[in-house]
Amino acid sequence: MDDVEVRILEKPKLRDTILIEGLPGIGLVGKLAADHMLDELKAKKFAELYSPYLPPQVSIRDDGTIHLVNNELYYWKGKENDLILLLGDFQGITPDGQYRISEKTLEIGEKFNLSKIFTLGGLGTGNIVRTPKVFGAATDKNLVKELKKYEVIFKGGGAIFGAAGLLIGLGMQRNIPGACLMGETHGQIIDAKSAEAVLRVLTKVLRIEIDMTELTEKAKETEEQMSRVSKMISEQKKAVERQQEFLNETPTYIR
Amino acid sequence: MDDVEVRILEKPKLRDTILIEGLPGIGLVGKLAADHMLDELKAKKFAELYSPYLPPQVSIRDDGTIHLVNNELYYWKGKENDLILLLGDFQGITPDGQYRISEKTLEIGEKFNLSKIFTLGGLGTGNIVRTPKVFGAATDKNLVKELKKYEVIFKGGGAIFGAAGLLIGLGMQRNIPGACLMGETHGQIIDAKSAEAVLRVLTKVLRIEIDMTELTEKAKETEEQMSRVSKMISEQKKAVERQQEFLNETPTYIR
Amino acid sequence: MDDVEVRILEKPKLRDTILIEGLPGIGLVGKLAADHMLDELKAKKFAELYSPYLPPQVSIRDDGTIHLVNNELYYWKGKENDLILLLGDFQGITPDGQYRISEKTLEIGEKFNLSKIFTLGGLGTGNIVRTPKVFGAATDKNLVKELKKYEVIFKGGGAIFGAAGLLIGLGMQRNIPGACLMGETHGQIIDAKSAEAVLRVLTKVLRIEIDMTELTEKAKETEEQMSRVSKMISEQKKAVERQQEFLNETPTYIR
Amino acid sequence: MDDVEVRILEKPKLRDTILIEGLPGIGLVGKLAADHMLDELKAKKFAELYSPYLPPQVSIRDDGTIHLVNNELYYWKGKENDLILLLGDFQGITPDGQYRISEKTLEIGEKFNLSKIFTLGGLGTGNIVRTPKVFGAATDKNLVKELKKYEVIFKGGGAIFGAAGLLIGLGMQRNIPGACLMGETHGQIIDAKSAEAVLRVLTKVLRIEIDMTELTEKAKETEEQMSRVSKMISEQKKAVERQQEFLNETPTYIR
Repeated sequence: MDDVEVRILEKPKLRDTILIEGLPGIGLVGKLAADHMLDELKAKKFAELYSPYLPPQVSIRDDGTIHLVNNELYYWKGKENDLILLLGDFQGITPDGQYRISEKTLEIGEKFNLSKIFTLGGLGTGNIVRTPKVFGAATDKNLVKELKKYEVIFKGGGAIFGAAGLLIGLGMQRNIPGACLMGETHGQIIDAKSAEAVLRVLTKVLRIEIDMTELTEKAKETEEQMSRVSKMISEQKKAVERQQEFLNETPTYIR
Repeated sequence: MDDVEVRILEKPKLRDTILIEGLPGIGLVGKLAADHMLDELKAKKFAELYSPYLPPQVSIRDDGTIHLVNNELYYWKGKENDLILLLGDFQGITPDGQYRISEKTLEIGEKFNLSKIFTLGGLGTGNIVRTPKVFGAATDKNLVKELKKYEVIFKGGGAIFGAAGLLIGLGMQRNIPGACLMGETHGQIIDAKSAEAVLRVLTKVLRIEIDMTELTEKAKETEEQMSRVSKMISEQKKAVERQQEFLNETPTYIR
Repeated sequence: MDDVEVRILEKPKLRDTILIEGLPGIGLVGKLAADHMLDELKAKKFAELYSPYLPPQVSIRDDGTIHLVNNELYYWKGKENDLILLLGDFQGITPDGQYRISEKTLEIGEKFNLSKIFTLGGLGTGNIVRTPKVFGAATDKNLVKELKKYEVIFKGGGAIFGAAGLLIGLGMQRNIPGACLMGETHGQIIDAKSAEAVLRVLTKVLRIEIDMTELTEKAKETEEQMSRVSKMISEQKKAVERQQEFLNETPTYIR
Repeated sequence: MDDVEVRILEKPKLRDTILIEGLPGIGLVGKLAADHMLDELKAKKFAELYSPYLPPQVSIRDDGTIHLVNNELYYWKGKENDLILLLGDFQGITPDGQYRISEKTLEIGEKFNLSKIFTLGGLGTGNIVRTPKVFGAATDKNLVKELKKYEVIFKGGGAIFGAAGLLIGLGMQRNIPGACLMGETHGQIIDAKSAEAVLRVLTKVLRIEIDMTELTEKAKETEEQMSRVSKMISEQKKAVERQQEFLNETPTYIR
């Protein structure tokens, strides 16, 4: 099994393609924003990524069918740019897995004329605010300058972890400019407001329009659904670990 | 050394083959059920899987001989379908190891005309019940529909971890339909009743007959044997760790 | 860099070769016994194994020179059998590293006509005894029978972890018979008496003679030396971890 | 993606090259010393190393642009020897990653006529001293003897972890002599004085001159900057982990 297995479902012709990453992260800000884009733009799935660096599990859908954990790519054809959305319920679960999955994502992107990358995320501050700011970090000064026009705030220090950081960091090595847009958020709650703030900036940058009406509703559903799933899973987890303890009494040689 | 090393002991001709997975998991439900099938059907071992992703240890048999940790495949020739049983004392101990072992298992299965997969497990609820229900999850709606006839309950949400999930999840990608049957169980006990419930459904689905008389007895033995082994191993483990601490004073760079 | 890098220093002609493993483990029983064999037999080093699965560190010798962590192979030409001793200060630090190093060790052994394997270890009981028993586990019933003549005790259940288990377990797959000899030991102390008990059995089995006089003295030195090293290393370790914490504030994606 | 990806920016002609390693470690002693050398000598960057074994993150510079975590090589042409400086904000985050990155570094070094290695670090003692001593460990007795002339103290026991140890340990296997210079330090503070002590020895050994005036100032800045970054990152980290917990409810099969 390869480190990342790609299933191409369709080969759309895309030009001036912009990759939008919305995998789970702080406050689920990036995921909420990108999932909402998917729904509003009615983007179409064209590729799936499977990897032994994703959690070894399947999730159960409401109709009883299963879904193997993966990352998915959707495309949408726009006026000025075509978009690719990177979505999923999980990021790579080891540091090197993170690298390998991001690298493969860029490799696919390049086959579809990738010209720019925006990764979406949250910046956890521990505070709840009424009008969340949007912070940024970018691969070059021109992009910093451009984004400042849209009231994106740039301040030094800190780091961006996981796919949101690696996609633009590894993108730089392929000479693809990119930026990360981070919505101000508490960090401990699923934050639809912060996702909306990020989307408002992103749609201006991309010169597209997206209706925000259903975003808050969706965030609520997400919260409920997750807390339900979380409870079930937690019960299973305890049971699994109890068995593992019982059977796998291997002393650890990993320190 | 390969990620998974396969030793084929015999090459039986099988048709319309159904894979039954019964590796250790919640309540040992799946393992008890599949081990019982092995005994009652007198299935025959035809392949062994060894892997650096299984625990680095040998177990000691009652006669003083050793057994290197592995997963084993047994076959049984039936009227309508031939069966392959996947058995073992351990699952892969890293997430990517889980993927690699499941992938290899399917690869072997395909060489023996694999046409369907049933993985067996427990669903931990924290409750002890008299007549355990059997829950299910399947790769497609037809199978969901079929299994509902046998009073298998399908409810959305949750996830299936490890081999029981991956085998059907990765099987989907090979266009092999499959389902996971999960017996309702407390989670903290070895549950023969739950295993019996799962087996009653499975035998109906497979249209075979299996005597259940010895199942409860076997579960008792398993419990005793494990608690004996567990105590010995726990003693060894403490001693090993004490030494490791002493010698391996390497600071961890893994965070 | 390969998983295991072998440096062959000499290519001795060996026949009917028996591998004796004495890497660190419970009570340091195996290591003490094998290190003592090295000194008394004046065996000669002929190969070194380096591996990224050993701890990433060098140790400092008394004269200020360094030694990269490794495993070493020594040979000794006997009357009936030639011997290979496997020695070192560490075992592989990940489960799959354990497999890969043991596998490579056997591969080398086969180049030098390996015909049997004895791995040495301790069996931690939590008790301190005057005359430690010697427990065994072997790859086949004949060997069990033979070793019983030397008052080796065989009882079922339990498991043998790490190199002592894997070398005989993986050896089986190459059709090389082997056994593990385990000296009864408390588990929390470095146990020269237990090492002596193991050696008394082993020398009878091998029909060689080894003077035991210096073994206890050596164990004392080992204890002192280790407690000294351990203290220094522990100080360094704390300091390293403090820095790591400071710099590597990466959130872990490994759960 | 390879285990280590090297980007060569320039191919300088170097002779009698000496590698100086200054990656983060105890008291940041080695990093402070080597970073100061970079500034004072105005060494020039000629290669970058990227690796999935470095943390999966980008850092944000003061101007809002990003920097993918890497290790960097700088060269400086001297009278007697040319120098290569190995700098970076992180070391490999897994044991085998440490090996692979150090091995690759030496491979590159050999292409630029590497003839000697000095790794710089701290020796944590738990004490704060006015005039820190410099301790050493070397690949051979001649180098030990030479360094003693510069009041480097050699005492046996202990170990050197990570890049500072591996580079000289793996260097030995390529017949490249090397030594580690360790400044006495408390271990829990960023220690400019200890870095200065190490540099005073190193410059004598290399017969070069370096002004120390700005070293203390720089250490202060480093401390401030890090504590700022650390606070921000810690906030993000908490938030990330909260989300991970929520989403990644995978039971761990790693023990």
